[in-house]
Amino acid sequence: MHDMSVKWPNGARCAVMLTFDFDAETLWTSRDPDNANRPGVLSQGKYGAKVGVPKILDTLEEEGLKGTFFVPGWTAENHTGRVEMILKAGHEVGHHSYSHRWVSDDPAAEVEEMEKGLEALKRTVGVVPKGYRSPAGEVSAGLFKLLQKHNFLYNSSLMDDINPYRHILPDGSKGPVELPWHWSLDDAPYALFSVKSPRPIFTNAHMLDVYKEEFREIYKWGGLYDIIFHPQIVGRPSRIALLRELIAFIRTFPDVWFATGTEVAEAWVAEYEKA
Amino acid sequence: MHDMSVKWPNGARCAVMLTFDFDAETLWTSRDPDNANRPGVLSQGKYGAKVGVPKILDTLEEEGLKGTFFVPGWTAENHTGRVEMILKAGHEVGHHSYSHRWVSDDPAAEVEEMEKGLEALKRTVGVVPKGYRSPAGEVSAGLFKLLQKHNFLYNSSLMDDINPYRHILPDGSKGPVELPWHWSLDDAPYALFSVKSPRPIFTNAHMLDVYKEEFREIYKWGGLYDIIFHPQIVGRPSRIALLRELIAFIRTFPDVWFATGTEVAEAWVAEYEKA
Amino acid sequence: MHDMSVKWPNGARCAVMLTFDFDAETLWTSRDPDNANRPGVLSQGKYGAKVGVPKILDTLEEEGLKGTFFVPGWTAENHTGRVEMILKAGHEVGHHSYSHRWVSDDPAAEVEEMEKGLEALKRTVGVVPKGYRSPAGEVSAGLFKLLQKHNFLYNSSLMDDINPYRHILPDGSKGPVELPWHWSLDDAPYALFSVKSPRPIFTNAHMLDVYKEEFREIYKWGGLYDIIFHPQIVGRPSRIALLRELIAFIRTFPDVWFATGTEVAEAWVAEYEKA
Amino acid sequence: MHDMSVKWPNGARCAVMLTFDFDAETLWTSRDPDNANRPGVLSQGKYGAKVGVPKILDTLEEEGLKGTFFVPGWTAENHTGRVEMILKAGHEVGHHSYSHRWVSDDPAAEVEEMEKGLEALKRTVGVVPKGYRSPAGEVSAGLFKLLQKHNFLYNSSLMDDINPYRHILPDGSKGPVELPWHWSLDDAPYALFSVKSPRPIFTNAHMLDVYKEEFREIYKWGGLYDIIFHPQIVGRPSRIALLRELIAFIRTFPDVWFATGTEVAEAWVAEYEKA
Repeated sequence: MHDMSVKWPNGARCAVMLTFDFDAETLWTSRDPDNANRPGVLSQGKYGAKVGVPKILDTLEEEGLKGTFFVPGWTAENHTGRVEMILKAGHEVGHHSYSHRWVSDDPAAEVEEMEKGLEALKRTVGVVPKGYRSPAGEVSAGLFKLLQKHNFLYNSSLMDDINPYRHILPDGSKGPVELPWHWSLDDAPYALFSVKSPRPIFTNAHMLDVYKEEFREIYKWGGLYDIIFHPQIVGRPSRIALLRELIAFIRTFPDVWFATGTEVAEAWVAEYEKA
Repeated sequence: MHDMSVKWPNGARCAVMLTFDFDAETLWTSRDPDNANRPGVLSQGKYGAKVGVPKILDTLEEEGLKGTFFVPGWTAENHTGRVEMILKAGHEVGHHSYSHRWVSDDPAAEVEEMEKGLEALKRTVGVVPKGYRSPAGEVSAGLFKLLQKHNFLYNSSLMDDINPYRHILPDGSKGPVELPWHWSLDDAPYALFSVKSPRPIFTNAHMLDVYKEEFREIYKWGGLYDIIFHPQIVGRPSRIALLRELIAFIRTFPDVWFATGTEVAEAWVAEYEKA
Repeated sequence: MHDMSVKWPNGARCAVMLTFDFDAETLWTSRDPDNANRPGVLSQGKYGAKVGVPKILDTLEEEGLKGTFFVPGWTAENHTGRVEMILKAGHEVGHHSYSHRWVSDDPAAEVEEMEKGLEALKRTVGVVPKGYRSPAGEVSAGLFKLLQKHNFLYNSSLMDDINPYRHILPDGSKGPVELPWHWSLDDAPYALFSVKSPRPIFTNAHMLDVYKEEFREIYKWGGLYDIIFHPQIVGRPSRIALLRELIAFIRTFPDVWFATGTEVAEAWVAEYEKA
Repeated sequence: MHDMSVKWPNGARCAVMLTFDFDAETLWTSRDPDNANRPGVLSQGKYGAKVGVPKILDTLEEEGLKGTFFVPGWTAENHTGRVEMILKAGHEVGHHSYSHRWVSDDPAAEVEEMEKGLEALKRTVGVVPKGYRSPAGEVSAGLFKLLQKHNFLYNSSLMDDINPYRHILPDGSKGPVELPWHWSLDDAPYALFSVKSPRPIFTNAHMLDVYKEEFREIYKWGGLYDIIFHPQIVGRPSRIALLRELIAFIRTFPDVWFATGTEVAEAWVAEYEKA
């Protein structure tokens, strides 16, 4: 049998990261720059800032939980008050590019997105992020060196594991810790409709079925449950109910550690690299 | 906690707008002008007029409810008797463009669609609409000025809120009240199949699950439940059953205010701007 | 209230047509001629002839029901034995084009498909069809004249009603009776997967949910339930079980008339045009 | 009635082949060569090797079952240890092309993929495969001659039957035995999401519903249940639970023969060709 369990702090069997990619309008402008002139299209992103973030924060506060919000620089500049609201409530803010551009084929753009994003987060809300998540999991081969250069503790952009692991660069030096994710633990594949990309809208029951089935098995294996929400999606009334129900479900299991990205990465390093 | 509740008339906790976008054939001709010469394709739209509208009107009559029908000018010209039937039954008729063209990138076309639509509604059925809904939520930045010019009370085209709000134009003047909608409260994402755009056909149970989950939470928040049907979709036999079941479900909740677009917008203005 | 009920023979409340479009390989070759050289792709169509048809015939025999099979000329030429098996079991064979080409934009091709199909059906299996169904509901404006010329009793290609009606040509003469269909009562939108057109595969429960919900309401309205299967789809083991379950469900309702296309059209004419 | 039952060894009513196409990164590089430079995209394939294969092997070991793994040559070269792990556990390894390229329109590429794949399997893990499965069911008309030339016992690439059958070549000589498959008994149509191809992610319940319904009827007919998994898909935590549940479900039926591809093909030959 292949035991893949991780030793989590205080004997927890499983770590849970509730993460929120606060793309706002950038989800639409990065896919088609012309969307910047389409108020109807953009209103879908604006909803995330206007309604989604406050309602998510309420939910996390009711549950006494801290989340990890990955924020593009553009969002920090254009919805500064909302990012401050997130920080004031004690949540972690990570880096999520500047404009949500896909840069897997353009390492120079990846550098630009990284640096502009860092600058914007610092200038607008005073954040130096410890974690990075790429838009849609699209990264270039240069990303790991770039994250090392900017002293990132962790990356959460790859899908090749269910446990944290250390990136080792070609020169043998240490890159960031990876905190893997997967499309099945994301809200966008299930609830982000557009006429031009006919992705169906699923029920809460459907989404919870997948999320819960993944949880049960990751709990059994002793791994990391890194789930990805978006304020413009999970912020819809029905989906806030889904978020509450998922948390309630997870809480029926003993020995679960809810943690932020930084907490997970630091615990993994403490257990596996500093012992 | 972020209270987003609205004060509705008579202490209602939630307002419900049952709306019907009576596109008929324009849904197909606006997406591909060649469809005008394809009787098989067009027959899907014709169904909305021939069967959908009468069956919807029967359902609303049985329930003693008034709906809001957004009607393209082309539909008023080509299915005049059906629009008269809607008016005679006491429902509201709003503006839904002339030909269902998407005009977000073409403000001149938006003006033309607006004016031709107004003229057609006036000439054919004597209606001067108080409300506007754009096709597919596609609007240009010029829309709000245009709605102001034509004295529209409300717009129902954006997705950036769950409550009514007032558009303020760049010059500081008042535009229309917005009555927001969302794709998840629409029948088209779930039940409009075409070979060329492989959108799956979902069950009533699936659609009702999303609609009910949205309702429960909007009711809890105290907001506006603005649901969008299409005679060519909800008019199918099975979907008329869905409409009945949704209404019956909503009626199990106390203090719900079923209202037309005009009633919702006027109540919001009376409460928030004239107090 | 808008009563749309039809007077069916012997006081039946509802007529049910079980129809089977026996496309075989033409479903793939008509969409992409290169598929003719791809044995893997074609094998999906061959299944309809090899396994689908015999298993459908077994099911209909067990139930003592007659179906209506719409057969392209190509299929009659290349799976002659299977079409003879259908005829020998007493089912109706209708016209379904020659090669399943979409001809809505090409009236000359429509004429060619019509004539080649008629010739092939006559030559291979001795059938002069009374009914026509176009591939995918795609027809040109010339179809009705063409059906009149070839003395078709009925057409089953449009979606603008739930009841039979008579086509009247521009010159005032009578065209065929229309027996309408709809995508929701078809197996292809739910169970025809291809990598290039990512249409999801649904469960029997999902399909039966839609089919049953449509049936309940059409039964209530007193209309025509014209359901469309394909041997290459409904012939899969699981879908044969679906066909059995649908028939069993319908049989729990009293006063249902199972009939072929010709029987339905003749009954409608007898009731509404010859009285 | 058309009896299509097969005489399986020891009076079994049904044969079950659990197969696993171990594509790893080739699923992405074969669809778009640029993916080779996108670590985020590739990480989805790497997961199959890193986590998927060991967890599948654990599951099969717990159940005491042998599977059939179809392995591209590239995978054997780049994940040699994982293929050795499969062999050591006693499972069958078959041929699955060299690079997962689609070759239906390019017989020369099919030859190249065949020969490079054979060479790689031999060199890296010492396997001379008896069975072949094409990527995505895409084959050219030359495949059967090619399989004959390389002495393949069986092919599992076509969808035109539910039972094994013998390919006869144009010259009348014997090609391989076909062990048919179908998209509905595959995990990829239900659980392989990508932004560029918006295929929805379904629940275990949905997938099991289809898989079980197919099983019940194939069991009833007495045929072959050839189900296709992918380590990069079924290896996800939730899907490993699905695999366990499917096996448990099948085991509630008496007289089921779990077998590898070679065992099924040899039994069919022994019964139908050597008797």
